[in-house]
Amino acid sequence: MSQSTAKRPLTMLQKSTKKKVIVRLKNEVEYKGKMDNVDSYMNLIMTDAEEHQGGKMIANYGRVIVRGNNVLFIKIENEL
Amino acid sequence: MSQSTAKRPLTMLQKSTKKKVIVRLKNEVEYKGKMDNVDSYMNLIMTDAEEHQGGKMIANYGRVIVRGNNVLFIKIENEL
Amino acid sequence: MSQSTAKRPLTMLQKSTKKKVIVRLKNEVEYKGKMDNVDSYMNLIMTDAEEHQGGKMIANYGRVIVRGNNVLFIKIENEL
Amino acid sequence: MSQSTAKRPLTMLQKSTKKKVIVRLKNEVEYKGKMDNVDSYMNLIMTDAEEHQGGKMIANYGRVIVRGNNVLFIKIENEL
Amino acid sequence: MSQSTAKRPLTMLQKSTKKKVIVRLKNEVEYKGKMDNVDSYMNLIMTDAEEHQGGKMIANYGRVIVRGNNVLFIKIENEL
Amino acid sequence: MSQSTAKRPLTMLQKSTKKKVIVRLKNEVEYKGKMDNVDSYMNLIMTDAEEHQGGKMIANYGRVIVRGNNVLFIKIENEL
Amino acid sequence: MSQSTAKRPLTMLQKSTKKKVIVRLKNEVEYKGKMDNVDSYMNLIMTDAEEHQGGKMIANYGRVIVRGNNVLFIKIENEL
Repeated sequence: MSQSTAKRPLTMLQKSTKKKVIVRLKNEVEYKGKMDNVDSYMNLIMTDAEEHQGGKMIANYGRVIVRGNNVLFIKIENEL
Repeated sequence: MSQSTAKRPLTMLQKSTKKKVIVRLKNEVEYKGKMDNVDSYMNLIMTDAEEHQGGKMIANYGRVIVRGNNVLFIKIENEL
Repeated sequence: MSQSTAKRPLTMLQKSTKKKVIVRLKNEVEYKGKMDNVDSYMNLIMTDAEEHQGGKMIANYGRVIVRGNNVLFIKIENEL
Repeated sequence: MSQSTAKRPLTMLQKSTKKKVIVRLKNEVEYKGKMDNVDSYMNLIMTDAEEHQGGKMIANYGRVIVRGNNVLFIKIENEL
Repeated sequence: MSQSTAKRPLTMLQKSTKKKVIVRLKNEVEYKGKMDNVDSYMNLIMTDAEEHQGGKMIANYGRVIVRGNNVLFIKIENEL
Repeated sequence: MSQSTAKRPLTMLQKSTKKKVIVRLKNEVEYKGKMDNVDSYMNLIMTDAEEHQGGKMIANYGRVIVRGNNVLFIKIENEL
Repeated sequence: MSQSTAKRPLTMLQKSTKKKVIVRLKNEVEYKGKMDNVDSYMNLIMTDAEEHQGGKMIANYGRVIVRGNNVLFIKIENEL
């Protein structure tokens, strides 16, 4: 049965710590950078994060903590 | 009585892991791809997912984790 | 006293499993089809569901799972 | 002290089962009919319900279950 | 220390049962009348309530139960 | 370590009871007056409160109970 | 494994008490100042906070308590 091998969404997120991700929020803004840590509410610490809106970068953040309830999705990129 | 044979919505979702699905979010964007896993909050891992809006594909995602509270519905397609 | 004979809303919903329903969501879209199952959060499995908006059918779904928090109301039709 | 004689809102609602009510939802639509049952979340079963919007009737429902979180207020009419 | 003499908001509300209040909802509509009862969620029973919008009265309600999550504020008027 | 001397937000709020505050709600309206009491949900009792919108005062309230979920922020002014 | 050395988002926030932060709320307004304290709901006490909107400063706050559910993100600046 598939559940034994597949990871649950929150477990997968935890395993993706330190990977590069793209986080899209409900307000359509995206943050691209390293997901330094995450909790089960999807609160995230991102480092070296670029803020993108409408296809262009509008700001840089050395370290930013995103409140999880704003998250639309998190795309897992690859190892840094 | 029907409850003994019919699956509850969340059980049905779990049984549909690894199937192709279309997930429509509240913001009208749709994600078509394999539902790699899902939890009871409807947080989803999707793989090889196409993002569609207004009838056309606008992006591709190798692996994306969608936060469940944004989900409007999940259409179960068929086995991959 | 009325409570002894009348069914509570969620009990009524459970008893209406396998009936034809119309589900209207907060975004004004309606789904007409068989309510294959439902839980206490009003998550629903619908089968052979037509999606209607502004009075016309815009799509068909063999099987769709609707997240309960989007539901405005569920109209119970009749036995299939 | 007033609490001993006055009914709490949810108790009052329960006591009003089988009465005619007008339910206004957050989207400004109103449902007028018999409140067949109600629970503490304000999920309602309404029977012989008329749907009104902008002062005119737009639909009839033999039996409809309204999800409580959409409710703005419930006006208690009178005995049927 | 002030906490010993001052009433907490929900206790104050309970003590104001049977007083005349103005309840403003998030949709800017106001209800002026007697607060017949209230619970800790701010669900209210109002009697002889006038509905006001944009400065003028638009309806009368003999008895109406307002769902607490819609409440913006409750102004305590005076004894009836 | 800072946690031992600094007050937590809700503790600070409690300690500010009887002070003059400005409460801004999500709908951009502000209430300036004495915070007579507050609870952990940020439900507030305000007395002698002025309602301000767009920079000008639009109403006065002898005593008003604001539902906490509408609060954007509370600015602590000074002792009365 | 990364979890042992990396801080969780809420732990990181607590450790950042007394640092300068930029808090962006869902309504696009930003507050720049010292984060005097914070709790797990992301309720914050900010001191000497500037309110910025559309790129310019519009107000100053000696001490303001922001309700956590309005927070979009918190950018950690540096030691004061």
